[in-house]
Amino acid sequence: MSTGTLTIDLAAMAKNWTALDAMSQAETGAVVKADAYGTGIGRAARRLAQTGARKFFVAVAEEAADIRHALGPDPEIFILSGHMSGDTDMISDLNLIPLLSSIDQMLRHFEALPGAAFGIQLDTGMNRLGMEPAEWEAVRTLVIPQAPKLIMSHLACADEPEHPMNAQQLAAFTQMTDGIDAPRSLAATGGILLGPEYHFDVTRPGIGLYGGLPFIDAVPVVSIDLPIIQTRDVATGESVGYGNTWIAERPSRIATVSCGYADGIIRAMGPNTELFAAGTRVPIAGRISMDSIGVDVTDAKDLPSSLQLLGQHQSVDTLAANAGTIGYEILTSLGARYTRRYIG
Amino acid sequence: MSTGTLTIDLAAMAKNWTALDAMSQAETGAVVKADAYGTGIGRAARRLAQTGARKFFVAVAEEAADIRHALGPDPEIFILSGHMSGDTDMISDLNLIPLLSSIDQMLRHFEALPGAAFGIQLDTGMNRLGMEPAEWEAVRTLVIPQAPKLIMSHLACADEPEHPMNAQQLAAFTQMTDGIDAPRSLAATGGILLGPEYHFDVTRPGIGLYGGLPFIDAVPVVSIDLPIIQTRDVATGESVGYGNTWIAERPSRIATVSCGYADGIIRAMGPNTELFAAGTRVPIAGRISMDSIGVDVTDAKDLPSSLQLLGQHQSVDTLAANAGTIGYEILTSLGARYTRRYIG
Repeated sequence: MSTGTLTIDLAAMAKNWTALDAMSQAETGAVVKADAYGTGIGRAARRLAQTGARKFFVAVAEEAADIRHALGPDPEIFILSGHMSGDTDMISDLNLIPLLSSIDQMLRHFEALPGAAFGIQLDTGMNRLGMEPAEWEAVRTLVIPQAPKLIMSHLACADEPEHPMNAQQLAAFTQMTDGIDAPRSLAATGGILLGPEYHFDVTRPGIGLYGGLPFIDAVPVVSIDLPIIQTRDVATGESVGYGNTWIAERPSRIATVSCGYADGIIRAMGPNTELFAAGTRVPIAGRISMDSIGVDVTDAKDLPSSLQLLGQHQSVDTLAANAGTIGYEILTSLGARYTRRYIG
Repeated sequence: MSTGTLTIDLAAMAKNWTALDAMSQAETGAVVKADAYGTGIGRAARRLAQTGARKFFVAVAEEAADIRHALGPDPEIFILSGHMSGDTDMISDLNLIPLLSSIDQMLRHFEALPGAAFGIQLDTGMNRLGMEPAEWEAVRTLVIPQAPKLIMSHLACADEPEHPMNAQQLAAFTQMTDGIDAPRSLAATGGILLGPEYHFDVTRPGIGLYGGLPFIDAVPVVSIDLPIIQTRDVATGESVGYGNTWIAERPSRIATVSCGYADGIIRAMGPNTELFAAGTRVPIAGRISMDSIGVDVTDAKDLPSSLQLLGQHQSVDTLAANAGTIGYEILTSLGARYTRRYIG
């Protein structure tokens, strides 16, 4: 086995869902797009459904098949990109609910699948997806009688609780939807943490389920262990890896592990990142290669057969900070070569 | 169809292989690890075999199955991570050739599969994979009579032709292997460009096949087209995307395309990157989201239904520079959600 092992703790995922669910009076859904943030959409959806989720959110129609297959006909599956050209058959066959984000999409849906379920996505200032206030004003009296399954919007700055954009979007959403007899949803993980006025009828946690910030109480879900291919001694002054960027400052022991940026170990994190040898910090030595990483294991007493990159000693958010990005990108970059192991 | 389309030009890949093959008198292999740098290992291997490649290189044993399935029993498939614990059955069943990189691996291989094919990986200064000179000295008289299929090493600085490391590694490799009656290999794409003394018997081009630097004459292989989900007008002063990082400086038109960092569009490239609307440059507006990207299409006359991120107007190396990385990472990060379309 020369690939890394990605261990996914489904019990931790369930615990995170339950904790986020307990924070609101709303119904709690689950965002499982991007292969459930790299954890495996079928397994994640099944566990979250067992835990209580009944509404699942994906980015594109193609992502819904694994959920429908895993969970059968009952759960509602919402598509955040709405009803795109070419999606009609999938929406119909899999009984999906597109979150219509424009009048174009609305016309496409009503014409292609009259009477079929749908939701509405409103733009409240992020200017990404959703109908503008003026568009919505023009069509709402036509739409409401057709009983949308959900009316939603998305917050641009929910990770920054003090940002004035949050209150602005809340006010806009309230104004656009007050008095409408349909379930409403504004909050993803960050929105849940902002407090009850953001919760409405349905919440849509994503990153928090998978152990990432801004849900600081999240239980870690993913760990990554990388098998050592070989170890070697290098003398003071010898270099390691591409471009000779790492030079031994003392007689050192280098382990080369199997895993690299082709597995989503973002190359930019190299200079700042440590792995763990059974609890001992062992820093990356030199550039991350496509399929391997050199690690300075000089300080490790008893070298195990694999080193841990992500897990109890180091979170996705630490890796994200090392790479100059966010935990979401760490998780969704994890590639196909890992052996995926489910526990819990 | 709400996913991006990844178009892979197999004729261009074949042309790159042929051009690299023409640059040396050596036999030209093909590095197809990391799913053939994101292009699809089965299809890539088949086309490269039709074009003349007989030796294929993968990072881990698990990657070899698609090649064996696509090409049948004849081509030689070399595993760069060697013979790892747990790999014996795969190596035996698929008739793979591990590039043994340590005495540990050698003992494992000779004991588990006596008489089975193998190659040798030597370290000539990169300190990543391969036997050290002293190790090699200790075992070479035992190994040579067993007819290794290949003796190879890898250059740490081949992308920098003037780097003194290249000549040092060449000298070390020559010293470690001169007089041995087995095929020798030192050069990947960069090494081929360094000149004939680096070529030996077998070359191992990777990135050059897929259209990336340092092979400046490479024909582009991969293009990415992203469907527009919706467009909207924003007024001067309005913000777009997470964190409100982009503010309209004029009345603008924003297109949201379906694709994001979960598809390997590295988040760090956002602030510097443009897409193309049928030839017109249209810059990214705001942060790249997980599944979507806002694009300022104000200057595009006739908006097509999709925007191009990668292709004739923009190379993998431009995207890499925008993201502060290398073309290799751009290609190997491309995710599973694209519709992959093969041409040529």
